[in-house]
Amino acid sequence: MTKLQITVDIVLFTILERQLHVLLIRRLAEPFRGSYALPGGFVLENESVDEAAHRELREETGVEKVFLEQLYTFGEPNRDPRGRVITVAYYALVANSHILRSGTDAADAAWFALNKLPPVAFDHQNIIEYAQQRLRNKLDYSNVGFELLPEKFTLTELQLVHEAILGANLDKRNFRRKILQQGIVEPSKEWQKTGRKPAQLYRFVD
Amino acid sequence: MTKLQITVDIVLFTILERQLHVLLIRRLAEPFRGSYALPGGFVLENESVDEAAHRELREETGVEKVFLEQLYTFGEPNRDPRGRVITVAYYALVANSHILRSGTDAADAAWFALNKLPPVAFDHQNIIEYAQQRLRNKLDYSNVGFELLPEKFTLTELQLVHEAILGANLDKRNFRRKILQQGIVEPSKEWQKTGRKPAQLYRFVD
Repeated sequence: MTKLQITVDIVLFTILERQLHVLLIRRLAEPFRGSYALPGGFVLENESVDEAAHRELREETGVEKVFLEQLYTFGEPNRDPRGRVITVAYYALVANSHILRSGTDAADAAWFALNKLPPVAFDHQNIIEYAQQRLRNKLDYSNVGFELLPEKFTLTELQLVHEAILGANLDKRNFRRKILQQGIVEPSKEWQKTGRKPAQLYRFVD
Repeated sequence: MTKLQITVDIVLFTILERQLHVLLIRRLAEPFRGSYALPGGFVLENESVDEAAHRELREETGVEKVFLEQLYTFGEPNRDPRGRVITVAYYALVANSHILRSGTDAADAAWFALNKLPPVAFDHQNIIEYAQQRLRNKLDYSNVGFELLPEKFTLTELQLVHEAILGANLDKRNFRRKILQQGIVEPSKEWQKTGRKPAQLYRFVD
């Protein structure tokens, strides 16, 4: 039976300036002191792993009541210089209006575009890439944009979410045909009238 | 920092007599001695969590070289009477021709239909249900039948796999239309000629 510790790490995504961003904190403690890392920490004795993920995110960033989904458990023997530490990774999406505050373990927290990440501690680069891949895969079969859009949205707004997650521009006509075929969204009875011409508002199918 | 242990548990599925079955072993050790449980055990010091899953499956059932996918990490504080034990669950699908042998920790291993499970140890009932749900969800967007079918197969054979996983009969015409629309399978140039009339053989798209 191995003496080990278990942590949680959270990949928190948002979209800023049409680009997918991830939240990183600067580490105040060794190892990797001064480096950027995912928010996270050790699972406490009387909490579930899921509870630990919510608590660490709240303590380190001030982000609360967010939809967190378990991503993957990373358990390579030498992934942490402190010894055998297995981490359960989570990911979440938030609208960019969330306000971040630094917690006790982190000097500061900041959003980084996925294509401009600084060097990160531990195997967190792997974890971020894994989370990004999961997010991309989910575009095809789920309402992954739900957390990032208002209740009713135009297909242009939805396309911007997809483009940010994919890191690529999409053909407008192909995108609309594919989305409407999938049956994930349906037209509402309302129209957005802020642009030059009114745009149909859609919503995710329950 | 919590003193804890980490285990792996494997939900191994097969299809027997058109029904989804799961492999259970009878526990030789406390706790839950004599009860059925998923194959699994403690992660050792110098192996990754994925390696532990392959090793435990091999040791307890003789099943090797199988495609294992990480399912979910179950970390409720009181899920194991021995103390804080977090388990990383995996699932896999095997064709039913695999031969099982009992290992050192298990008195015997046997296949059970999902609708006729005996009482199982720990939170393994939850884990099995979670794995079954994942499998059902994957039918819609992946070649989940790949491990269970020969390289080329008829749509009737594919339908039997879907019916076993869903635990329900499907309408033949609707099933075929939906499968062909999804683009997961494509016709091969061969036909199966064992039945009364030849049937087109399909394969999964790479």
